[in-house]
Amino acid sequence: MEGQHVVVLGATGAVGKEIVGLLETRQWPVKKLTLLASARSAGSTMRFRGEPVEILDSEKFDPQNVNVALLSAGSGPSRALAPRLVEAGALVVDNSSAFRMDPEVPLVVPEINLDSVKKGDLLIANPNCCTIILLMAVAPLGKLSKIERIIVSTYQSASGAGAAAMEELYQQTKCVSQGEKIVPQVFPHPIAFNLFSHNTFIEENGLNGEENKIIAETRKILESPGLGVNPTCIRVPIPRAHSESVTVEFSGEAPTEEAAREALASFPGVRVIDDRAGNYFPMPLEASGQDDVLVGRIRRDPSNPKALSLFVCGDQLLKGAALNAVQIVEALWARDGAAG
Amino acid sequence: MEGQHVVVLGATGAVGKEIVGLLETRQWPVKKLTLLASARSAGSTMRFRGEPVEILDSEKFDPQNVNVALLSAGSGPSRALAPRLVEAGALVVDNSSAFRMDPEVPLVVPEINLDSVKKGDLLIANPNCCTIILLMAVAPLGKLSKIERIIVSTYQSASGAGAAAMEELYQQTKCVSQGEKIVPQVFPHPIAFNLFSHNTFIEENGLNGEENKIIAETRKILESPGLGVNPTCIRVPIPRAHSESVTVEFSGEAPTEEAAREALASFPGVRVIDDRAGNYFPMPLEASGQDDVLVGRIRRDPSNPKALSLFVCGDQLLKGAALNAVQIVEALWARDGAAG
Repeated sequence: MEGQHVVVLGATGAVGKEIVGLLETRQWPVKKLTLLASARSAGSTMRFRGEPVEILDSEKFDPQNVNVALLSAGSGPSRALAPRLVEAGALVVDNSSAFRMDPEVPLVVPEINLDSVKKGDLLIANPNCCTIILLMAVAPLGKLSKIERIIVSTYQSASGAGAAAMEELYQQTKCVSQGEKIVPQVFPHPIAFNLFSHNTFIEENGLNGEENKIIAETRKILESPGLGVNPTCIRVPIPRAHSESVTVEFSGEAPTEEAAREALASFPGVRVIDDRAGNYFPMPLEASGQDDVLVGRIRRDPSNPKALSLFVCGDQLLKGAALNAVQIVEALWARDGAAG
Repeated sequence: MEGQHVVVLGATGAVGKEIVGLLETRQWPVKKLTLLASARSAGSTMRFRGEPVEILDSEKFDPQNVNVALLSAGSGPSRALAPRLVEAGALVVDNSSAFRMDPEVPLVVPEINLDSVKKGDLLIANPNCCTIILLMAVAPLGKLSKIERIIVSTYQSASGAGAAAMEELYQQTKCVSQGEKIVPQVFPHPIAFNLFSHNTFIEENGLNGEENKIIAETRKILESPGLGVNPTCIRVPIPRAHSESVTVEFSGEAPTEEAAREALASFPGVRVIDDRAGNYFPMPLEASGQDDVLVGRIRRDPSNPKALSLFVCGDQLLKGAALNAVQIVEALWARDGAAG
């Protein structure tokens, strides 16, 4: 692999920072790193391999001679920059929701559906954090028996709303401890010692935007347009790592607990923590900072012989966002060689 | 109603304190209040109607001339004291799990199944906190259409494990904020900024004790032995008030969202908070200290036309424990007159 010109858009955000860190720890063949952000953040610097890198205004960026671009600045900036990067021949992985449901754009968890990327595809969408973490636990079971329906309740950390939201959780917690009044700024409701329904817009079907993303993205990634998905998305006072309580219903017989445990344990990127005797199962505190998605509480659904239930935790900033994006590029390099 | 001799066992615990407070605020006709606890707590005093009441050692208590006893000190003390109180003619409401599944003992949420108490029954069991909060939201729907299956994931507060657990949440949170090491004492895992599977013993069916309680108690209260119930019980870093993400499947057609909302709004003890435009739904912060169970996110299950989903919050110490016990006695007084 020759030295690559890599671009990170949204470099100063919670996910962008993780991406830059991963390029370093995973020893990407970076010849040149361009960090982009809004005009507001331009001019500051971030360190990469010990050297300061200046952050540039994304609106003034010339996308020529880029090999790989990782975009994580929301839908607006992605819509503006992605087409120009693709036209200039760069491989683009977009972490926003801008292109996820575009039928021409593959939506990829590399362990699950790398095949959906055709050779020559330059624009690839990174799924929603909850979708990735859910499917890392569900897709291995789909190899054992056909999945008909997924019921999932989430316990989503503050990190999903960015660095400012994580800071708000800590600040509000201090205020409560000191008996001071809380004034929510990032979230619409107090997050310290509280939880609430995910604050995305409630759409016509009574589900919020986050829940409808999970439904649509799960169907696309699993290539199962009729799959039943019933998500409830809840924000909890956890700094990072999302948890999900999942029930999977199969059209035929459910896999045995043993078969499910084995399929999960042998799936790359999954770690099974399922110690019933020790009452030790996945926890967000232990999933934080980890590449692996943790899966446990694997058990028969006592209300349906064709179903299994499980509990999943994954770092929202890593496998739920930055790591998955980085892994998409690595998997394509391994399969197709470097683009550009 | 003549003046009653009322006994509270476990008066110094988180639930016991709430019971004593409710006797005062609900203006019970108390002629004499006897507060009992373990030998360790005996000798201290609590205030009732402005007067100090000495706490007595429950093992040395003579149960003669008691009208009503509210027991909340765990199964062991309940097994020891309840039969003696009943023999002496007292009406006993037991908050432990000791007698809940005894076929001779009614298990009661007064808004739902007061009829299960026959005239002359003296021992009545108060259900598990999660069961009460769940059924306050589910039973009203069962009047509209027959319920076949309930899938519930809980977000249980620290208060469910008692006053020391609530204190541990606050203390650990301070430690984390100050960068100090956490040493869990009440819970087996860190509770500050973390969540974990309920730490009751995992039984043979792969479910923990809390989950199996919800299944058995739900079936008993709804008088529906074959009802499917699939619970996942998770402890979250919230001081008090439990939340539950619930999906209810009906054997026939599901009620419309409007019919469900109306049935819930008109059910005593339930308050519907379901403001989709304002993205305002039940939150544990707002359920804390409230008698009502809050219900919202009432919507069709997109994966099953015969199902509805909803989100519920209730104060675990009030309707989930102390208030329900107190209401059982009040409902029986209203129906049958005072016992003893």
